[in-house]
Amino acid sequence: MTSTLLTNIGELTTHDPAGAEVLRQAALVIEGAHVAWVGHLADAPAADAQVDLAGRAVVPGFVDSHSHLVFAGDRADEFAARMAGQPYAAGGIRTTVSATRGASDEQLTARVGSLVAEMRRQGTTTVEIKSGYGLSVHDEARSLAVARQFTEETTFLGAHVVPEGTTVEDYVALVTGPMLEAAAPHARWIDVFCEEGAFDGDQARTVLEAGRSAGLLPRLHANQLTAGPGVRLAAELGLHAVDHCTHLSDADVGALSDSGTIATLLPGVEFSTRQPYPDARALLDAGVRVAIATDCNPGSCFTSSMPFCIALAVREMGMTPAEALRAATVTGAAALARDDVGVLAPGKRADLVVLDAPSHVHLAYRPGTPIVAQTWLGGRP
Amino acid sequence: MTSTLLTNIGELTTHDPAGAEVLRQAALVIEGAHVAWVGHLADAPAADAQVDLAGRAVVPGFVDSHSHLVFAGDRADEFAARMAGQPYAAGGIRTTVSATRGASDEQLTARVGSLVAEMRRQGTTTVEIKSGYGLSVHDEARSLAVARQFTEETTFLGAHVVPEGTTVEDYVALVTGPMLEAAAPHARWIDVFCEEGAFDGDQARTVLEAGRSAGLLPRLHANQLTAGPGVRLAAELGLHAVDHCTHLSDADVGALSDSGTIATLLPGVEFSTRQPYPDARALLDAGVRVAIATDCNPGSCFTSSMPFCIALAVREMGMTPAEALRAATVTGAAALARDDVGVLAPGKRADLVVLDAPSHVHLAYRPGTPIVAQTWLGGRP
Ligand SMILES: [Zn+2]
Ligand SMILES: [Zn+2]
Repeated sequence: MTSTLLTNIGELTTHDPAGAEVLRQAALVIEGAHVAWVGHLADAPAADAQVDLAGRAVVPGFVDSHSHLVFAGDRADEFAARMAGQPYAAGGIRTTVSATRGASDEQLTARVGSLVAEMRRQGTTTVEIKSGYGLSVHDEARSLAVARQFTEETTFLGAHVVPEGTTVEDYVALVTGPMLEAAAPHARWIDVFCEEGAFDGDQARTVLEAGRSAGLLPRLHANQLTAGPGVRLAAELGLHAVDHCTHLSDADVGALSDSGTIATLLPGVEFSTRQPYPDARALLDAGVRVAIATDCNPGSCFTSSMPFCIALAVREMGMTPAEALRAATVTGAAALARDDVGVLAPGKRADLVVLDAPSHVHLAYRPGTPIVAQTWLGGRP
Repeated sequence: MTSTLLTNIGELTTHDPAGAEVLRQAALVIEGAHVAWVGHLADAPAADAQVDLAGRAVVPGFVDSHSHLVFAGDRADEFAARMAGQPYAAGGIRTTVSATRGASDEQLTARVGSLVAEMRRQGTTTVEIKSGYGLSVHDEARSLAVARQFTEETTFLGAHVVPEGTTVEDYVALVTGPMLEAAAPHARWIDVFCEEGAFDGDQARTVLEAGRSAGLLPRLHANQLTAGPGVRLAAELGLHAVDHCTHLSDADVGALSDSGTIATLLPGVEFSTRQPYPDARALLDAGVRVAIATDCNPGSCFTSSMPFCIALAVREMGMTPAEALRAATVTGAAALARDDVGVLAPGKRADLVVLDAPSHVHLAYRPGTPIVAQTWLGGRP
């Protein structure tokens, strides 16, 4: 197994609980797909190959724990209408369902591949991908089969919205029955959009419990548009993470703090729907663990950029640059029940980002710019 | 002179006042550095070479009419402190002055070159660059000489802030005397930061009139932090543009509307200083011409991305995607007294951007993403 020494790292964010969170004048050794050594430049061991990073900052690769990349078409017109004053509603999802059902497997695969490549250029090394624009047994299963070509972190989101021509009761029965059976072999997770206009708390519980019985790990879209029951359900069920968390009561915050369930905030959604942002500062101060992710999807947020979401987290949600970076890496990993990524320490995966900047602060200080110089995935640039 | 046909353009934004603002299924012919023909795909003439754009959208290259690229160092720590609650103040400029004076010509040139290249990758084809971090006769002149290597649109901003160790009266005398004399050969424009903590209305008038006498075109930073006298001064003097315009009285808006002076908004500044955004919608509705630019600088806004500023203009300032694109191209050109760029029509410069998207709407719909597929400058990719 060949080793590579990354040398002359101006600032290295490790997130290593056993070591320094951030090292200056650092170096890192990769063996195969993993990190073998991290430390000060002066102490660096020899290696088979050496790459001089000329003082640039290195951070763990971004973990985007929430995306919806399997779709066809776009909703640019709906976006433009929304910016002119029309409110966002869950029903727009059905537009994408029609386009997705009409696309071939090859078309869907090419689209996901191009979005994953776009994410990679922006530093994302782990991405969760949901189904949810098929909404039939066949189309949900093939959406997940397409997603599985790109990531192990696939999520069955048959319960995204009720498709036209059926009742919510019949559709929940389909999702928890034949659709789950067809989807489960391709998925690690199961998810529900718990929101007015989508699924209520009882329906969400039914879907998540069926998924758990089928061996899937449950997660939840909750409290995006209204302070509904989703966050408390997530805490009660002990989920790894509950996503959106835009509208929270004090009881919701207390439940998250007590349960340890991660609040995954998706600030690109508030940007692209012109809604108020969730208060990450208040969550952190209440002891809640906070992750951030893109929610990349054609309706409510079509950004694929974790650096952009970090910049929003700092500008709009009161996080420090270091907190936002943790949220985009190690806490995003925890939201996916992963501890092999999001941290740069011996034994962890060598998934990392070389910034075209001397410090991680530049992720927020230089918004919108192409700040990712290189993305290393599994030890390779 | 060889000709190149760009074919299969899904959507072509021309901004041609004599033709259609936007064409679908379009083509464009370049001869040398200029556009020779624009029209529908079906009518396209033959050319020496042909490039198939596969349905992508093409827009005029971005005109960034306001930047401060000649500097050394950065102020990431000041940014992080500001995000933690410390307000922005003009005095921070002095930190960059010290670093800039200490840098060699080669260091400054390399930095400007790297930022201009970064802008180019994001679709900017015309950039204005100011001095203003030298604040001595020698350092202002060399800042402009460095800038002039990259653009004709250089601006003498000796009156950026009063340097330490002198009075404002003495400094205005220096700026309008020996410093102007040394700077003028390298500059097209003269500018003043008219703001509390920098220069008042009378001082701004004195500097702009001296510059005009020396053959420079006047422009102004005004009403960024307070509703001061700058915007009315700009209108009175009939300037092409006045920049920032964050705090405006009704009288200011009326003066802009009557004078035809362009309001150049810099929404990246409000993003990076966490201030309220100017109301572009109200300005447009009052008949004011609006441009947008980055203000790229190490203090108040270190973005170089016109697409990011377009996304902010739509999200935060009430512009439509088409209005924001006009503001970033043809109106930015007018703010620089240019009519050869910002428009794609026969005889105009072949400065254009191929988007990795089917429509210009995606500039706002896909915030933070690397949406620029190619930038063509003077007829060459
Ligand atoms: Zn989602
Ligand atoms: Zn400025």
